[in-house]
Amino acid sequence: MSDMASLIERRDRAFGTGAPLFYDHPVHVVRGEGVYLFDAEGRRYVDLYNNVPCVGHCHPRVVEAIARQAGTLNVHSRYIHEGAIALAERIAGLHGPQIESVLFGCSGTEAIEVALRMARFATGRSGIVCSNATYHGNSELVSGLTHVGTARPESETVHAFPFPETYRPIREGLSEAELCDAYLERLSDAISRFEASGAGFAALIVCSIFANEGLPDIPAGFMRRACELAHAAGGLVIADEVQSGYGRTGRWWGYQREGFVPDIVVTGKPMANGIPLSATAASRDLMNMFRERTHHFNTFASSPLQAAAAMAVIDVIEDEGLLESVGRVGAAFKAGLEARKDASPVIGDVRGRGLFLGVEIVRPGSREPDSARAVAICNALKDRGFLTSHAGALRNVVKIRPPLVFAEEHAEGFLEAWDGVIAKCGA
Amino acid sequence: MSDMASLIERRDRAFGTGAPLFYDHPVHVVRGEGVYLFDAEGRRYVDLYNNVPCVGHCHPRVVEAIARQAGTLNVHSRYIHEGAIALAERIAGLHGPQIESVLFGCSGTEAIEVALRMARFATGRSGIVCSNATYHGNSELVSGLTHVGTARPESETVHAFPFPETYRPIREGLSEAELCDAYLERLSDAISRFEASGAGFAALIVCSIFANEGLPDIPAGFMRRACELAHAAGGLVIADEVQSGYGRTGRWWGYQREGFVPDIVVTGKPMANGIPLSATAASRDLMNMFRERTHHFNTFASSPLQAAAAMAVIDVIEDEGLLESVGRVGAAFKAGLEARKDASPVIGDVRGRGLFLGVEIVRPGSREPDSARAVAICNALKDRGFLTSHAGALRNVVKIRPPLVFAEEHAEGFLEAWDGVIAKCGA
Repeated sequence: MSDMASLIERRDRAFGTGAPLFYDHPVHVVRGEGVYLFDAEGRRYVDLYNNVPCVGHCHPRVVEAIARQAGTLNVHSRYIHEGAIALAERIAGLHGPQIESVLFGCSGTEAIEVALRMARFATGRSGIVCSNATYHGNSELVSGLTHVGTARPESETVHAFPFPETYRPIREGLSEAELCDAYLERLSDAISRFEASGAGFAALIVCSIFANEGLPDIPAGFMRRACELAHAAGGLVIADEVQSGYGRTGRWWGYQREGFVPDIVVTGKPMANGIPLSATAASRDLMNMFRERTHHFNTFASSPLQAAAAMAVIDVIEDEGLLESVGRVGAAFKAGLEARKDASPVIGDVRGRGLFLGVEIVRPGSREPDSARAVAICNALKDRGFLTSHAGALRNVVKIRPPLVFAEEHAEGFLEAWDGVIAKCGA
Repeated sequence: MSDMASLIERRDRAFGTGAPLFYDHPVHVVRGEGVYLFDAEGRRYVDLYNNVPCVGHCHPRVVEAIARQAGTLNVHSRYIHEGAIALAERIAGLHGPQIESVLFGCSGTEAIEVALRMARFATGRSGIVCSNATYHGNSELVSGLTHVGTARPESETVHAFPFPETYRPIREGLSEAELCDAYLERLSDAISRFEASGAGFAALIVCSIFANEGLPDIPAGFMRRACELAHAAGGLVIADEVQSGYGRTGRWWGYQREGFVPDIVVTGKPMANGIPLSATAASRDLMNMFRERTHHFNTFASSPLQAAAAMAVIDVIEDEGLLESVGRVGAAFKAGLEARKDASPVIGDVRGRGLFLGVEIVRPGSREPDSARAVAICNALKDRGFLTSHAGALRNVVKIRPPLVFAEEHAEGFLEAWDGVIAKCGA
C-alpha cells in the first residue's frame, strides 16, 4: 500500500469515515511558507484557498509572537493580563463607534452562538432570519441555520430569505432597483412570519458578502435597506465577518464594502493565523447585558497566546500594507479572469471583491450550474500546483481566497494554469 | 489611578462588565513556569488551580513543539497530514477497545455538543440526563444542562438526577449500599420520565468524578450501576473527562477510577497545555454515523499545531512519570489536609483523588455550607502566594487542582500557608 493510501486508511479509522478531505487525490501537506504549501514529495503548491493563515503560512512575525508568548505565559482570563484587553481595544478601534466591547472564543461557531443568544436576550424574542443558502457553524443552535429554506425546512425560530443575487434573480426582467425591492420584500416576509407566530423577530444574520452563497453581486443598497428593515422591526443585525473580515475585500470589514452598520460583528478564521480564536463584538450595553444574563466563561479564550498571535496579525496587515495590496492585486486578478470569460462558455460569471473571487461554472452557453465540472477544474488546478475549492449555493463556484500576501506574480501563474485547465475541462 | 485599577477599568470596557475575575484583589499575571505564576511586581505564586497547563506552565518541550510546528505548517484538516491522525490513534490507545475514533474541536463546549448530538442521532431519541449541579459548557445546547433541577427547571429534553454524595446524602440513616440504591432510583426516575413524555432517553452525561458538584465521595459501585441502567434503557453514557482526564486522578481517565466504561468520552482543557483543543472519542460506528449525519467540519481543529502540542503533552506525562507522581503527591497532600480536619471546625470534609482535592468549608460544627468563608480563605491563600478557587454545588469547596508537576514541597508550602489562613479565617 502506498504511503498515501495507508495514511487515508489510518485517517478513516482515526477520524471516522467521511471526515472532509479535498480533491480526488488528496494533498499530503508537510510545510507552509507565505502563499505556498509543500507536499511530502517536495512539490510546491500555490495556496488560493486558505484564509486562516491570512498573512501567509508561518509568517515569521506571527511565529515569533506565538513562540515568545507560549514560552512566557498562557493562562485563562480570570486573572488580569493586558494582552487580550489590548487586543479587544484594538479590534474595537477598527470598527465604528457602535462596537465597544469584545467577547473572545475559540471558533466561529462559538462566536456566532454568543451573537445569536445576545440578540435574543436583548430583544426578548427568538426569531432569527438568515439566508437560504448559508452556513454559520456546526453547533446545534448554529447548524440550525445551514441551508434553511432550501435543503431543510424553516423552524419555529429560524426563517430564511432568498439570498440577494443578480446572476439568477428571484424574478426575471426586473431592473436592479426593482430586484432589490423584490428581495427586500422576501426578507420582510420572513420577519413578519415571526410576528405572526409569536416567536418575535430577534436578529438578521448574514455573511456581509454572502460568501457561502457564492459571492453574489448584490443589488446596490440591499444590505443598507435590509438593516433598516431589521431595525424597524425591532431586531438586531449580526454581520458574520468570519470570511469577509480582516482585509479580505481590501477593507477591514466586508460590511464597509456593502455599506451597512451591524450591531454585532463576529470574526474568526484569520484572526490569529491559525491559533484558534474568534470574537463577538458589540456595544458595551449589549455585552454587559449578555455577561449579566449568562456568566459566560471560555477557558481557552482571551488568553495571552491568542492575544499575542492576533496582535502580530494586525501588525503585519498594517505594516505590510495588505489592505492596499489586496485591493490592487484582487482587481487585476479579477480582470484577468473576466478577460477569459467570453472565450470559455463554461465560465458563467466572475464575481468577488479583493482577494475573494468566485468563478461560476455552468453548462456551456447557459446559466445551468455545473458542479461536476467545477470539481473537475479544482482537481485539475491542484494537479498543476494551484489549490482552490468549489463552493456556493449550487456548489459550482470555484472559490479563490488566498492568503492576503498573494501577489500579482501568483495571479499570473494561476491564470496560466487556468488556461491550461479550461482547455482540458472547459470543452 | 493605580496600574491595576486602570487595567480593571480598561478590562470592564473591553470585555464588558462582569467578565469573570478571581479574588477581591485580582492577580496581574505576567509569567508562568512549572507550578508557578508571577505577577507584574515579580511576586511568585504557587498555582493550585490550573489544569490547562497540566504539565506545568510553559513546559519547554511543549513550547518547543508549538514553536517548531507553528514555523513549519498549520493548516486545516481537509488535506492529509499525519499529526492529528497519529494523535487520534494515540488517544484511542489510552482508552479501552470501545474507543476507536476521535473528532477534535477547540473547546470542551464544542466536544460536548458533538457528544450530545451523536447520542441523539444514534438512539433516535432526544432526552439527556445529567446531574443537578453540573456544568458542561457555554453553548445554547450545552448550557441547558447547567444546574438543571436546582437553579433552573428541567426541560422537555433535559432531566436531572441528584448527584451522588455521601456527605449530604439525599436520605439520612442509610448504609452506603442503601444510599447507592436511593440515588440509582432517582436516576432511573429521570430516565423514565423521558419514556413517558415521548422524548425518549438518549444519554446519561456525567463528569466522571463530579468535579463541579464538589468532588463528592460517591457510593461504591454507583457509576458502574448507573451505566447499566442507562444501557438497559437503550441510552448511551457520555463521560465528560474535561476535568477528570489526562492523569488528574493518577489514572489516565476518571472513569477508570470510578469503574465504568463510557460509550463516548469528551476531553479538553489539559490536552495541549493551552493551545485550544478538545476531543470527542467514540466507537468507529458512532463516529461514522455522526459524520454521515452532519458533514461536520471544524476549521481550527485537527490542525498540525494542535497535534504537535498535544503529542508533546502526552510525551511529558509518560516520560516524566506524572501518573505515578500525581497519585503519590496527591495522597500525601490529602492526608496532610485530613490531618488538619479535627483541629478546625470549619473544615467539614476533605475529598478528592490524585491532584484534584476539595475542602468543604462549613459553619463550625455543622454541615451547613459557608461559601463566604470559602471565598475568604481563597483570598487569604492568594495573599500568601497560593492560588486556589472555590467551587462545588454550594460554592463552598476550596478547589485544589494544580498542574500535574506539583510536588511534595509545594504541598508542604501550601499546608503551612493553610494553617496560617485557617488561624485567621477559621475562627
